[in-house]
Amino acid sequence: MNDSALMAELSWPEFAEKVRQGATVFLPLGATEQHGPHMALGVDVILPTSVCERVARNIGGVVAPAVPYGYKSQPRSGGGESFPGTISLDAHTLSLVVRDVIRGLGHDGVRRVVVACGHFENMWPAIEGIDLALRELRRDGITDMQILRLEYWDFVRRETLDRLFPEGFPGTELEHASLLETSFMLLLRPDLVDMGKVPSDGPARVPAYDRYPQPSGFIPASGVLARAERAASEKGQWLLDDHVELVTQAVRQGFEL
Amino acid sequence: MNDSALMAELSWPEFAEKVRQGATVFLPLGATEQHGPHMALGVDVILPTSVCERVARNIGGVVAPAVPYGYKSQPRSGGGESFPGTISLDAHTLSLVVRDVIRGLGHDGVRRVVVACGHFENMWPAIEGIDLALRELRRDGITDMQILRLEYWDFVRRETLDRLFPEGFPGTELEHASLLETSFMLLLRPDLVDMGKVPSDGPARVPAYDRYPQPSGFIPASGVLARAERAASEKGQWLLDDHVELVTQAVRQGFEL
Amino acid sequence: MNDSALMAELSWPEFAEKVRQGATVFLPLGATEQHGPHMALGVDVILPTSVCERVARNIGGVVAPAVPYGYKSQPRSGGGESFPGTISLDAHTLSLVVRDVIRGLGHDGVRRVVVACGHFENMWPAIEGIDLALRELRRDGITDMQILRLEYWDFVRRETLDRLFPEGFPGTELEHASLLETSFMLLLRPDLVDMGKVPSDGPARVPAYDRYPQPSGFIPASGVLARAERAASEKGQWLLDDHVELVTQAVRQGFEL
Amino acid sequence: MNDSALMAELSWPEFAEKVRQGATVFLPLGATEQHGPHMALGVDVILPTSVCERVARNIGGVVAPAVPYGYKSQPRSGGGESFPGTISLDAHTLSLVVRDVIRGLGHDGVRRVVVACGHFENMWPAIEGIDLALRELRRDGITDMQILRLEYWDFVRRETLDRLFPEGFPGTELEHASLLETSFMLLLRPDLVDMGKVPSDGPARVPAYDRYPQPSGFIPASGVLARAERAASEKGQWLLDDHVELVTQAVRQGFEL
Amino acid sequence: MNDSALMAELSWPEFAEKVRQGATVFLPLGATEQHGPHMALGVDVILPTSVCERVARNIGGVVAPAVPYGYKSQPRSGGGESFPGTISLDAHTLSLVVRDVIRGLGHDGVRRVVVACGHFENMWPAIEGIDLALRELRRDGITDMQILRLEYWDFVRRETLDRLFPEGFPGTELEHASLLETSFMLLLRPDLVDMGKVPSDGPARVPAYDRYPQPSGFIPASGVLARAERAASEKGQWLLDDHVELVTQAVRQGFEL
Amino acid sequence: MNDSALMAELSWPEFAEKVRQGATVFLPLGATEQHGPHMALGVDVILPTSVCERVARNIGGVVAPAVPYGYKSQPRSGGGESFPGTISLDAHTLSLVVRDVIRGLGHDGVRRVVVACGHFENMWPAIEGIDLALRELRRDGITDMQILRLEYWDFVRRETLDRLFPEGFPGTELEHASLLETSFMLLLRPDLVDMGKVPSDGPARVPAYDRYPQPSGFIPASGVLARAERAASEKGQWLLDDHVELVTQAVRQGFEL
Repeated sequence: MNDSALMAELSWPEFAEKVRQGATVFLPLGATEQHGPHMALGVDVILPTSVCERVARNIGGVVAPAVPYGYKSQPRSGGGESFPGTISLDAHTLSLVVRDVIRGLGHDGVRRVVVACGHFENMWPAIEGIDLALRELRRDGITDMQILRLEYWDFVRRETLDRLFPEGFPGTELEHASLLETSFMLLLRPDLVDMGKVPSDGPARVPAYDRYPQPSGFIPASGVLARAERAASEKGQWLLDDHVELVTQAVRQGFEL
Repeated sequence: MNDSALMAELSWPEFAEKVRQGATVFLPLGATEQHGPHMALGVDVILPTSVCERVARNIGGVVAPAVPYGYKSQPRSGGGESFPGTISLDAHTLSLVVRDVIRGLGHDGVRRVVVACGHFENMWPAIEGIDLALRELRRDGITDMQILRLEYWDFVRRETLDRLFPEGFPGTELEHASLLETSFMLLLRPDLVDMGKVPSDGPARVPAYDRYPQPSGFIPASGVLARAERAASEKGQWLLDDHVELVTQAVRQGFEL
Repeated sequence: MNDSALMAELSWPEFAEKVRQGATVFLPLGATEQHGPHMALGVDVILPTSVCERVARNIGGVVAPAVPYGYKSQPRSGGGESFPGTISLDAHTLSLVVRDVIRGLGHDGVRRVVVACGHFENMWPAIEGIDLALRELRRDGITDMQILRLEYWDFVRRETLDRLFPEGFPGTELEHASLLETSFMLLLRPDLVDMGKVPSDGPARVPAYDRYPQPSGFIPASGVLARAERAASEKGQWLLDDHVELVTQAVRQGFEL
Repeated sequence: MNDSALMAELSWPEFAEKVRQGATVFLPLGATEQHGPHMALGVDVILPTSVCERVARNIGGVVAPAVPYGYKSQPRSGGGESFPGTISLDAHTLSLVVRDVIRGLGHDGVRRVVVACGHFENMWPAIEGIDLALRELRRDGITDMQILRLEYWDFVRRETLDRLFPEGFPGTELEHASLLETSFMLLLRPDLVDMGKVPSDGPARVPAYDRYPQPSGFIPASGVLARAERAASEKGQWLLDDHVELVTQAVRQGFEL
Repeated sequence: MNDSALMAELSWPEFAEKVRQGATVFLPLGATEQHGPHMALGVDVILPTSVCERVARNIGGVVAPAVPYGYKSQPRSGGGESFPGTISLDAHTLSLVVRDVIRGLGHDGVRRVVVACGHFENMWPAIEGIDLALRELRRDGITDMQILRLEYWDFVRRETLDRLFPEGFPGTELEHASLLETSFMLLLRPDLVDMGKVPSDGPARVPAYDRYPQPSGFIPASGVLARAERAASEKGQWLLDDHVELVTQAVRQGFEL
Repeated sequence: MNDSALMAELSWPEFAEKVRQGATVFLPLGATEQHGPHMALGVDVILPTSVCERVARNIGGVVAPAVPYGYKSQPRSGGGESFPGTISLDAHTLSLVVRDVIRGLGHDGVRRVVVACGHFENMWPAIEGIDLALRELRRDGITDMQILRLEYWDFVRRETLDRLFPEGFPGTELEHASLLETSFMLLLRPDLVDMGKVPSDGPARVPAYDRYPQPSGFIPASGVLARAERAASEKGQWLLDDHVELVTQAVRQGFEL
């Protein structure tokens, strides 16, 4: 029990001891969201938690339970809210959750928190939640809380992207349920991937604007925004290696550890 | 992948198919809360999820991801907010989470939801969240959503309690981190229990009122409100059997399945 | 005017003087809720105000105006929201009222507040309102506010319950509009009780779960959850004596007066 | 019990019957606010409730329990928040209370509500609460709710004001705790007025702007904004007669009764 | 660029320098609201901004961008929400905007703010927003912020009103889109007035109460509550001279400049 | 007055007539934010309003008043909140403003709205505000409202970027107060640009994560994130031509006009 990096697996005295030693706490912000017909709804919880757990081990940190519901899926980045199984929170709700959890950590003595998004749309409610938490903590007399906020997928080497996309990287937004996430899942939870169901109706052809209500025919019916056929566990390993190494570096740099 | 009862492990077409068939969805409301020096902070997520998963299998239902942060721990039922590792949400925040998730399920076509509390203090924010969700769903034209709300520990036979507490059952409130929860965890996640650390400073001696701020010396320093020494995996099995059988019955009765 | 224990009957200099002397302020949280065909809708305001007024006189305290609208009536404890005349607040609304009133008292110099629920469902919104008020007061530099929160009906001797229920006490929840409240009203406001209309369709037979929307046939059509036929003014006196004496004791103990 | 015009004194079947007959419901919005050294803090609850009760009797209506806490007292109309005993709600809180109560009445079948302010500062939060309630009721399919909103003191004859203020009426704002309210209280609750304590430090000399924080020396130290020495029960009777007659007329006209 | 009194026309170092010198910041609260068939929807932004700009020049102040959406138009003062082009905010929304802007100014070092309403209905949401901002600023350690709040139209000499209304001034409420505003617009933005379209269906005949939903036939169909035929640019100059001189005086007095 | 594309310059009957004819309404979301020592704080209001006005003329639309306060400036895209003159709204506040304005437009009969961000950080609060407005409008029975949301700077030809950045386009985020915005302002409001004050301390060197509180030395002290020296009015014309033409196309396509 003692050597777990997961907060949910620590007793309170074990957690208290880690906090006393100045442990950084990671808060993964996931989602319950469609990831194509070939992957499970929980991808956005599994991936950031896995990255955070490995980084936490590198630096003696702790991973708080991931928030398993995220901000509303947008057509251009996640296919939109119309897919069954995509269950989302209002922005205000998610920001309050982030605020409350960080405020609670601060009152427990934690002074370094990494908010790690595993779902593109969580970025801005997370930013607001962090701002609200820091505002409240300052009013509670806690002025030395430090927070990093990141998307794990930004932490990948140019060379790795070149190996993964020999014909050129199309950009992260359209990668929803596509090559990167599928490879990563094949490595970590192959039981939750069915390569036989990878669709071929992508990529999405999205305009430069959002339109509400979401027009039909805009997003591939499968929910996979780009292509996933060439996903492979080995490629997931390349990603994991980069994510863990580069996020570890970033956390050390950002917190001057 | 297909036969999982966990929503996070289903693809969206698999989830959509279950909804089409009228599946009941279970929403466990957990907590990240101290459970004594001998158990992990995640007890209140593990236990209701485990019960829900088994009941869901019995009736062909699906378990949505548990909300891992709960309402504020109260001294008389959970030891209070002062224990490190107890990280809680404001009531309004938790009610909004419950509202948003149920509203999202309703828009996906789900018509039967069981909200299963694994943390005593979640009861009332859950009730409010359910009321807000039903109000919004009615305004969205969805008038046939049905919801059950329960605490899993209420579903235990009198005989079982008599076997567990030959000297008389002290009541559920004080059972926090005590015989029942410890036995249940010994059965389900023995790796997260350390019987060598079970304290002996209980039981709490609580008055008939709440006092804020929480007075010191009121709650055992260990956070265990009653006694846990006699916990045993076998007793956890008695509990699990009751919970699963009786909750299954209740769901069938409540939804007239 | 000067010797009233009711804040509404004091002038501001009289109230200011009491605060200067360290008076405890009582805040009754009532409801406008059905109490059977034989009692008035205002029972949950009258009863806690009456107890508080007597306790306040014992300890030199002051009773603030009761909040006359409460949290939503639940089927298992109050018959539910479907009875005409049951007019309730959202949880967030009630918590904000409690927060604002306590914050205002704190800014006026009050340092001891007793929040006395006269309606079962007010418990948790009251807890949240108290927490929000204390949080705000701390941020306003007021760190020594102390609050007790209680349900007056918990302050009754075992012997009294045995005298009232020779066949065994069924528990407080089901007592809604039944023997206890009816006896108490017969003592205090007999003009608002009509014993000729006491129904005999109880007691409610409630399952261990909540179901929404409330199923019909679940709660007696009268709204009386248990039985009220044997109510008597004399029994109300037994209750009043216990409540006043035991709450007085509790307040003295809780505040170390 | 049956012939009371106060909702709190009706049983639920009695209230239901009145609603069935189309009764208008009055909702007095009061305050707990300083009213000079010579009057009690509850003036703004007592006066509108008394007017409403009489009007309700005239037209067969019902008076719901008054909300006893109002919006923040302003220096120019109530002396400001700095007087001990002035305990106020945030605007949002009060609007939510008004919204919730009217929404509840609408769901009970009430179709005509008179919101009667007894505290100047309640006007705008009341307007917002009414708007929010009507918006929600429309979404709930209730489109025929009608609401009047008024300040009872506006319902007075020019001749009466001339009799009361032979040297000219200074306007309602400055009348806080002054001749009108004091006379009215002398009529209705003389036990809560002490004419021996009427101060002579008014009237307030207020500029055409609000200044925050409230400057000292701006408002008479007594809290009485104008003058109250000439208050008399007889004058209260003149006021009551006007208020009841003219509000009755207004309600009949406004609702086309 | 440097000598502008409009914040939007200053660079950040220029604004910072003015703040360093103790500049007062004016925040006009406007509206997008019908002003009759003869005037543009933006009247309530143009007029207070113009007054504020001139006063700011007199005292070396700065005018922040006007909030161009106001609180809901009321029938008795602005014709009500039913006119196309009247686009309003909920009270809570507007109060939060006022709070956020003042809080931001306070954090930038501003210590004197004048909130200048150009729309009658903004008064109370402005009061609440100011109170919320001051509360938050105090919690942020900023205790010396001073705020004035005013309606510019109150700053007019008795003599001027007598010249404008030789037959007697009907009061500001009914002046919506009438003689005063029309004259003022003829002076400042004659391109946005079409005197040929001034209606003659007023004045409104309003009762002493509000009625919701707004009854038809209550307000002139044109939206002009009183009469505007005699409006003239020269009269606008009388008003502007008074407003600028008297508001300048008030600001100097209120802030003891 | 009649031929203006600005809503604030239309009378209500003129606006009503345009709505009757099906006019699209543009809502620019601006900011009051530092734009370097060489440009005014109002850049983010001026630019999107100018683009919208021209597009509105092309398609017979109307531009509603720009919201002049935006979401909190982020270090990586706007330099952060620490610059004097950057005055921002909480996310919830801004979302409520967007919700209220769109809801009001919908109730006035508008069925096509373009939300045009002129400030990068407004994107997500705008998305949430739109979702909340559509949700409420549906509940109000208005199901055919259509909304486009865009950032005007995304509507530029590849060739134009190549001409503007012969050494390669660094991406929009870092363009804050840099070549693009400065050129655009030189074209539209040269009086608000002082090329003599263009700094040379950029570009910012930003990591792949956000850090709170904002570390010092991270962002150029001037607030200009990239470089602005080569800005020119002629280049602003290239941008304006692209923006107006391509946004016009997008609106026609998105709304199938």
